[in-house]
Amino acid sequence: MIFKRIKSEGLAQNSYFICSEDEAVVIDPRRDCEVYIDLAKREEVKIKYIFETHRNEDYVIGSIELSNLTRAEIFHGPGLNWGYGTILHNGNVSHIGNLKLTALHTPGHTGESMSYVLAESEEPVLVFTGDALFVGDVGRIDIYGPEEAPRLAGVLYDSIFNKILTLGDGVILCPAHGAGSVCGGKISARDESTIGIERAQNPVLQLSKEDFIEHKVSEHHERPPYFRQMEKYNLEGPPLLGRLPIPPPLTPEMFKEEMERGAVVVDARTPPAFGGAHIKGSYSIWLEGLPAYAGWVLTYGKTILLVLECRDHLDKAVRYLVRLGYDNIVGYLRGGIEAWYDSGFRIEYMGLSSVHNLKQRLDSGEDVLVLDVRDENEWKEGHIKGALHIYAGQLESRLREIPRDRSITIVCNVGHRASLAASILLRAGYPNVCCDVLGSMTAWRVSNFPMTKE
Amino acid sequence: MIFKRIKSEGLAQNSYFICSEDEAVVIDPRRDCEVYIDLAKREEVKIKYIFETHRNEDYVIGSIELSNLTRAEIFHGPGLNWGYGTILHNGNVSHIGNLKLTALHTPGHTGESMSYVLAESEEPVLVFTGDALFVGDVGRIDIYGPEEAPRLAGVLYDSIFNKILTLGDGVILCPAHGAGSVCGGKISARDESTIGIERAQNPVLQLSKEDFIEHKVSEHHERPPYFRQMEKYNLEGPPLLGRLPIPPPLTPEMFKEEMERGAVVVDARTPPAFGGAHIKGSYSIWLEGLPAYAGWVLTYGKTILLVLECRDHLDKAVRYLVRLGYDNIVGYLRGGIEAWYDSGFRIEYMGLSSVHNLKQRLDSGEDVLVLDVRDENEWKEGHIKGALHIYAGQLESRLREIPRDRSITIVCNVGHRASLAASILLRAGYPNVCCDVLGSMTAWRVSNFPMTKE
Amino acid sequence: MIFKRIKSEGLAQNSYFICSEDEAVVIDPRRDCEVYIDLAKREEVKIKYIFETHRNEDYVIGSIELSNLTRAEIFHGPGLNWGYGTILHNGNVSHIGNLKLTALHTPGHTGESMSYVLAESEEPVLVFTGDALFVGDVGRIDIYGPEEAPRLAGVLYDSIFNKILTLGDGVILCPAHGAGSVCGGKISARDESTIGIERAQNPVLQLSKEDFIEHKVSEHHERPPYFRQMEKYNLEGPPLLGRLPIPPPLTPEMFKEEMERGAVVVDARTPPAFGGAHIKGSYSIWLEGLPAYAGWVLTYGKTILLVLECRDHLDKAVRYLVRLGYDNIVGYLRGGIEAWYDSGFRIEYMGLSSVHNLKQRLDSGEDVLVLDVRDENEWKEGHIKGALHIYAGQLESRLREIPRDRSITIVCNVGHRASLAASILLRAGYPNVCCDVLGSMTAWRVSNFPMTKE
Amino acid sequence: MIFKRIKSEGLAQNSYFICSEDEAVVIDPRRDCEVYIDLAKREEVKIKYIFETHRNEDYVIGSIELSNLTRAEIFHGPGLNWGYGTILHNGNVSHIGNLKLTALHTPGHTGESMSYVLAESEEPVLVFTGDALFVGDVGRIDIYGPEEAPRLAGVLYDSIFNKILTLGDGVILCPAHGAGSVCGGKISARDESTIGIERAQNPVLQLSKEDFIEHKVSEHHERPPYFRQMEKYNLEGPPLLGRLPIPPPLTPEMFKEEMERGAVVVDARTPPAFGGAHIKGSYSIWLEGLPAYAGWVLTYGKTILLVLECRDHLDKAVRYLVRLGYDNIVGYLRGGIEAWYDSGFRIEYMGLSSVHNLKQRLDSGEDVLVLDVRDENEWKEGHIKGALHIYAGQLESRLREIPRDRSITIVCNVGHRASLAASILLRAGYPNVCCDVLGSMTAWRVSNFPMTKE
Repeated sequence: MIFKRIKSEGLAQNSYFICSEDEAVVIDPRRDCEVYIDLAKREEVKIKYIFETHRNEDYVIGSIELSNLTRAEIFHGPGLNWGYGTILHNGNVSHIGNLKLTALHTPGHTGESMSYVLAESEEPVLVFTGDALFVGDVGRIDIYGPEEAPRLAGVLYDSIFNKILTLGDGVILCPAHGAGSVCGGKISARDESTIGIERAQNPVLQLSKEDFIEHKVSEHHERPPYFRQMEKYNLEGPPLLGRLPIPPPLTPEMFKEEMERGAVVVDARTPPAFGGAHIKGSYSIWLEGLPAYAGWVLTYGKTILLVLECRDHLDKAVRYLVRLGYDNIVGYLRGGIEAWYDSGFRIEYMGLSSVHNLKQRLDSGEDVLVLDVRDENEWKEGHIKGALHIYAGQLESRLREIPRDRSITIVCNVGHRASLAASILLRAGYPNVCCDVLGSMTAWRVSNFPMTKE
Repeated sequence: MIFKRIKSEGLAQNSYFICSEDEAVVIDPRRDCEVYIDLAKREEVKIKYIFETHRNEDYVIGSIELSNLTRAEIFHGPGLNWGYGTILHNGNVSHIGNLKLTALHTPGHTGESMSYVLAESEEPVLVFTGDALFVGDVGRIDIYGPEEAPRLAGVLYDSIFNKILTLGDGVILCPAHGAGSVCGGKISARDESTIGIERAQNPVLQLSKEDFIEHKVSEHHERPPYFRQMEKYNLEGPPLLGRLPIPPPLTPEMFKEEMERGAVVVDARTPPAFGGAHIKGSYSIWLEGLPAYAGWVLTYGKTILLVLECRDHLDKAVRYLVRLGYDNIVGYLRGGIEAWYDSGFRIEYMGLSSVHNLKQRLDSGEDVLVLDVRDENEWKEGHIKGALHIYAGQLESRLREIPRDRSITIVCNVGHRASLAASILLRAGYPNVCCDVLGSMTAWRVSNFPMTKE
Repeated sequence: MIFKRIKSEGLAQNSYFICSEDEAVVIDPRRDCEVYIDLAKREEVKIKYIFETHRNEDYVIGSIELSNLTRAEIFHGPGLNWGYGTILHNGNVSHIGNLKLTALHTPGHTGESMSYVLAESEEPVLVFTGDALFVGDVGRIDIYGPEEAPRLAGVLYDSIFNKILTLGDGVILCPAHGAGSVCGGKISARDESTIGIERAQNPVLQLSKEDFIEHKVSEHHERPPYFRQMEKYNLEGPPLLGRLPIPPPLTPEMFKEEMERGAVVVDARTPPAFGGAHIKGSYSIWLEGLPAYAGWVLTYGKTILLVLECRDHLDKAVRYLVRLGYDNIVGYLRGGIEAWYDSGFRIEYMGLSSVHNLKQRLDSGEDVLVLDVRDENEWKEGHIKGALHIYAGQLESRLREIPRDRSITIVCNVGHRASLAASILLRAGYPNVCCDVLGSMTAWRVSNFPMTKE
Repeated sequence: MIFKRIKSEGLAQNSYFICSEDEAVVIDPRRDCEVYIDLAKREEVKIKYIFETHRNEDYVIGSIELSNLTRAEIFHGPGLNWGYGTILHNGNVSHIGNLKLTALHTPGHTGESMSYVLAESEEPVLVFTGDALFVGDVGRIDIYGPEEAPRLAGVLYDSIFNKILTLGDGVILCPAHGAGSVCGGKISARDESTIGIERAQNPVLQLSKEDFIEHKVSEHHERPPYFRQMEKYNLEGPPLLGRLPIPPPLTPEMFKEEMERGAVVVDARTPPAFGGAHIKGSYSIWLEGLPAYAGWVLTYGKTILLVLECRDHLDKAVRYLVRLGYDNIVGYLRGGIEAWYDSGFRIEYMGLSSVHNLKQRLDSGEDVLVLDVRDENEWKEGHIKGALHIYAGQLESRLREIPRDRSITIVCNVGHRASLAASILLRAGYPNVCCDVLGSMTAWRVSNFPMTKE
C-alpha cells in the first residue's frame, strides 16, 4: 500500500491517493488533476475509483476531469440529485488491490457527507473524514443557513462520536482540509493526527453535546458568493478542462485592449509592490490569497487579466483560479508592471503605511478613519479603538458605509487583505489617500500598541 | 509543523525530516544527504539537530555528512564510545520551533538504541522507534551474538511494552525500516501505523514475554560481512563524501584495463539480460538488489566497475553502493554490454531456464542438482524435493559443497538471487551449465508443482 | 531572437522554434508538441505561425495538434490538395517580432518542398531547408517512384544550387533531419553547419549536375509501408491527440487477455534480454529502433502491447509510436517480463551468438545459413561469404525464401535488427534455432574476420 | 559531435561544451560549474580539456572548480604568469574524440587572448573568439588603460582581419559574450552568427583600420572596481567552492543581528516593491542587475545579506554573486520583507514617480534636480534638459556633487539603476525625497517628451 496526501495550497484542501497492487483510488481530487495521473504512472497502477466525501462549496471537484482521463468510477454520498457518479450508502465496501474501503455516512457538515474507512485486514488503519472531523476542529454547519444549523450541529456530533471516534484511537485521521481553509476555523497547522489524538486534544471534542451544538451555532464563518457556483458545479458536474489553460503573454498594448473590452485585472503581487505601482482599476490579491479571496470579487461572466510578480507565478495563479472555476483567463502582462510603465502607460499608487506611522498619527489627534477588514472572529479578539469594521470580502457591497471625505487607513492581519480593500476603494474612485498598513494588527500587537475589545 | 518520511529504496530505510517555524531536525539521515538540504531549502528552515536512533549495521549513517554541510548538532544514545556527536539520555528534551522531542532509551535491538517522542503540547504525536518497533514486526536481537540474544529479547520486550506502547494508542509510529529491510523479518508493506494498530495487529506483540523471547531467539537472520564495516564507520564516523562520486564512462578498452588492474565487475542488469550476454567474471546483482547483496560479495579494498541496463541507472547504482560505503567506483561501461560485444570482445552466457522446463527434467529423471539459494526462512516454508540449500550470500564461502561434475540448476524466490549465485559459480569456473530458473519458487508455487518441507 | 533546435531522437527529425519579441514560429513541429508550448511559456511568447517544409513521409506532422492548442496559423508549400493550412508561394514574407521569414520554393525531394529564410535586416541569417539540403547529404528523390527520380534529381539540384547556395556562405543551415534519418543516406552526425561548409565539404555538392543526377538515381533507400499512412495523414490532417496516450499497466493476466483479443506485442528491450526470455509471438524492436522499424511490421488496425526494460521507458516508447500514428497502445506489462514468468506463464528464448562462435562454426564446416538483414547499402560494403541477404524490413513478406530445415544465424550491423528478424522467424514458427549474433558485422569487422563483396 | 552554448544570464557570458565520442571540452567555464558535469553525465563523456580564451575581468573563471571535479586539463594563452594550467601557443592542436581544436593567438582585447578553431576534417566549422569578435561588435581595448588603447585596437584589428575572418565565411561564430555584457557595447541580441554574417553586417568590421582604431579608442566603457579582484583571481586561481553556498534563512531578529555585526543588505526586489517598503540601509539591486551592479558597491571584506522577492530567487542571487567572487553570503530574510514588518520592525520608503508626474513638475517650474545615472553612451544619445549626469556605478564616490537641500528625482533607462542610485542616496542620509522615476528615459522617449543632447 502506498499512501499520499496531496495538499492544494491556498485552499488548504487535502486529497488522497492510495494504491495497492495494481489499483489506486483517489479521494476528493482537485480539478488540476495531472498530479494523480503522475502518481499512478510512477506507481504503475490504474486509478479505479474516485471517492468524494461531499459536495464541496469552496472549490470545483476534479472527479469528472480525472474520470475523463482514466475512466475511474466516481462515488459519492446519498440524498442529492447528482448529475454524475454513483451513490454509496453507509456500509458499502469497495476493494482496491488488497485494501478494503468502507463507506461511512457521516452527515452534519452537509447531509450527504461521507467518510471512508480503509483497512487491510479487518482492523481500520485510515479514515477519510471529509469536512466532518479536522485536526483540531470540526466542520462548519452553516451551509444550509441558520435555521438548519442547530440540527446539523447535533447530527455532526453524532456522526463524529458514534461513527468516527468509535473506529479506535489508533486510526489515522485524513481530513479534507488543513489549516487556513475557509471550511474550518481553527484547524491545526499539523497534518498528522489520529482518532486518539483528536479525542484527547481537539478542543471541540471535549464539549458535551449541548455545548458542542451551542459552540457550533455561535461560530461565525464567511460565505463567499462563489460558493453558489461551486455547489452548482459539484452537483451537476463542472465543465471539462482537458488541460490547464495557458493564458498568453500580452504586451501592454494588447493588455490594454482586453481591459477596454471589459476584462478585470487581478494584480497578484505583494502589497508593497502593488503600492509602489499598479494599473488603475486592478484588484490587489496576493498570489497565495487567490484561492480564498478571488471568489469574493470576481464574477463568472467576465474575462480575467493577470499582473504577476514574475513569470514563474503564472502556473500557480492559473491553478488557483481554475480550482474556483475561473477558466476565462485571457492573458497576463508580459514583462510585468515594468513593461507597462516602460511603455509610457500611466500607473497608480496605493498609500503604504507602517504601524509606527499610524500610531503616531492617531496619537497626534489627526483625523484618521481606521478601516479594519479582518473577519469577525479576528475583530473580536481585539482591534484599534474607533476603527470601523467591514470584512474585506464584503467591502465591495458595503461601500456606502465608507465616507469619501476622510483619510482612510486600512488594517487587516498583516496587510494583504488591507491591500485588497484599498484596491476596492481605489476602483470605486475613493481619492488616492487610502493607506494599507504593512504588518497591520500583527505588527501592532508585537509593538504593544493599545487594543480594545467590543 | 511539516513531516516527511524519506525512504531509501532497496535498504528499505526510513529517515525523517520534521520542521517547525524556522528549524528542522533529521532522524537517521542517509549518507547521500542532499535530499534533506533540498527539503530545508524548500521549507526555508535551518537543520538544527540530527538524531540517530542507533548505530546502524546495514548502512553508513549520514549524520557527519549532513552536519558538515549544515553545522547541525548530532545526537545519539548512551553506552558507546562514539567518535562524534553528543550522547543523549532517557528523558532529555530538545526543541525545534514549537516542537518538543523527548529522548526515550529503548534498548534491545542494541544497547544504545533510542526512540524519540515528538509533541507539540504535552501530548505525544509521533514516535521514532528506530529498530525497536516496526510496522508488523520488532527489531532483531541477534546483533551481539547468540549468547546475548535471550537477554536482549527481554530488554526489547520491556522497551516496547513499558516505554513505547505506554505512549498511547493514538501516537503515530515512525520506525527506521519498512518492508524488505534486512533488519526485520516480516515488516509490513504498509508504512502508516500507530501504537494502537500495532498493539492490536502486530503478531509479535500478541505474545507473552516468554513467548516473545523464545520467538525472537529462534528467529534466523542473515548477517552479511559488510555489517562489520558499517558498525566501525557508524561508531567512529565514516569518511566524508562531500558530494556523490560521478564514475566516468569507460570505453570497452578502458573498462578492460581497469579489470586487468583488479577491479571487480558488478553487472546490475536483470537476469534474462545477464543470461543473454555478460562479461566473464562479473557478479550479477540486479539494480534493486545492490543494497542487500553487494555487501555479501564486494570487499572494501577493491575498485568497482559497473555494467548497467541504461545510463539512467548510474545514479541509483552509485547511491546504493555509497550507502554501503563502497565509494571506490572507478567507472561504468559506456554504451552498456552492447559496446562490449560491438568491440569484438568476448562475452559469456548464463543458462536460463523456466519452471516448466525444470519440472520436465526432474520428471524425466534427468540428473539435475537443484541449488536453492533462498534464506533459511524461505527454505523452511517449502522447497523442491532433493534440492541443496545454501543461502546466496554464503555461497562464495561454501563452494566446496557444490560438485563440479553435475548439472546445476539454481532457484531462489524469483530468479534474482539465483542469477547472483550462478554468477558466483561462473566466476569460480564451474562449467557453463548452471542455470538460473526465471520465476523460481514463485512460479513453481503458482504452477502448483510439488514442494516438500523439512 | 531565440533559436532552438528540437531533435526527435530515433526519427532524427529536427524541428525549430524561433522567437522574437512576443512572437514565435515553429518549423515542422512533431506530434507530441508540448515541447513547443513549454518553450513558448518559458520565453513568454505566443506561437503565431507554423511552417511546414513539406508533406513528410516518415512521421505524423504535429501542425494541427499544435495549432489546436495555440491557434497558430499553418503554412505549407504549393501544388498539393492540403486538407488544412494555407499555401505559401516562393517569395512570400512573414513577420515574427522583428524577424522576417521568406518562403523559398525548393522542390526536388517532393514537389511542394519549401525552404524558409530567416533574416533580421535584409541579410539572411538562417535557412530551414527541410529535406532539400542536409549536413553532408541531400534529400531523397525516390518518393514519387523510379520514373520520376531523374527529373526530381535535376529539380533538386537546381533548387539547391540556384536558390539555397546563392543565399551566401555565411548563412546557417537548419535541415529537417540529422544522422540516422531514413530520409537521407549519409547525413553527418554533426548538426552545426552553414552554406559555406556544405558548399566546400558536402560530397554530393561537389558533383556536376549530371553526376549529381546519376548519383541520386542510383541510390537505394528503403520505403517502409507506413509511409503511405503518413502521406495520407500529413496531406489530410492527422487525428488530434489532445494529449499523449497513457497506456495502463497490465498484470500478466490482463496482458494475456489483450493478446488473445488480437493485440500485437512489441518487446522494446535489448537483444540479450529478449534472447534471455520473451513472450511467444513478440516482435523484438529495441527502444531506439521503434521510430525506424515499428513502421515495417505494425499495422494500423491492430492494438499494441508493450514489454519494456523499465517503467521509465514507457513515455519514450509511446512518443515513438505516436509519432508514427500508432495511437492504439492498449497497455504495457506491469513489472516487465519478470512479472510474466513469476506468474508461471511460459517464456520463449531466442538463440544468441557471438561473432567468435559464428566464425568457429563456419570454419568447422557446420551447415549454417547466415541471414544478413542489413540494407542494400550496408550489404554492398561487404558481407560474410555465402550469406543470404534480405533486409529486415522486408523479411516478413519474403519468408518463403528462407528454408525451415536449416540452422539459421542472423546478422545485421550490431545485432538489433537481427533480433527483430529472429523474432519474425520465431513468430512464423521457425524452429527455435535462429540465432542473433550480438555485435554482428561491427564486431566481425573489428575482429578482422573475412568479408566479401558482391 | 554535440555542441552546447551555456549562457550565464545577467553576465551575458557564453561558455561552450563540445563533445565527440567519449570526450568533451569546455570553453570558458563559469564558476557554478555543475552544468557541465550534468551535460557530461547525460552525454556519457569525460571532460578532458578546459580552454580559456583570456583572463576574464568580469567574472570568476570556473576552470579550477571544474578541473577539481573532473581532473580536466586547463589551457590558456601566452604571456601571463598564470598560477595554474598550461600555456598554449598559436597553432597548437588538441584532439577531442574525432575533433581537432587549433589554438589561434588573437590578442587585442588583452595580450594573451586566444581563439580556438574546431574542425572535424581539415575545414574549420566553429571558432571560439572569446572577447575578440562578438556578434555585431568587437572586444574592448581599454583594459590596459588609455595609453595602451590605440596599440591594442590595432592589434585587435589585425587579429580579427588576419586570423579570424580568414577562416572563411562559413565558419560559425562562438564568442564569449552576448547582448548586455559589460565587455561590449553593442553586441547583438541574436546569438547565431558566422564569419560571413559578421564580415557583411558587423558595423565595426566595415571600418578601415584607421577608423577602427579611432572608433575603439573613442568608445567609453565603464570599469567597475571588482574587475581588479577578478583579474587577480583569474590569474592566480580563485578559491575553490566545492559546491554552491546555501545561505540560511534568517528570521528578522537574526537578520538584524547580522546587520549589526556589519553585514551589508542587498535588496534584489523590483523598484516598485523596494519603493513600497525596504530595510533602512539596503542597496536596491534588482535580481537580474546583480551581475552588472553588485561589483560597483559591494566590497569583498563584508558579509552580505539578501532580501528577495520570493524564495525561488535565492539560487539565482547566490549564483550571480558567487560568479563575481562574493562568496560570503550569511543569509537571506526568511519570509521576505513581509516578515520584517510583521515583526514590528521599522521600514523605509523610496519615492516613486512616473514620467508624467516628472514632466508636470518640470513644466510647472518646480525646483527639481533630475539626476541621470545612465552611462555616458546613453547620456550622449539624449537626456532631460538641465539634468545632472553621474553614472550609477560611480555615484557612491561622487556624492559630494549632489546637493542635500534639493528635491532629487532620479532617472536611468527604465528605473532599475535609478532605484540603486536612490538607495545609495538614502544610505548616505539624503532626506527621504529622492524619487525613482519608473520607466525613466524609456517611458519619457515613448511619451515624446522633450530631450536634449550635449
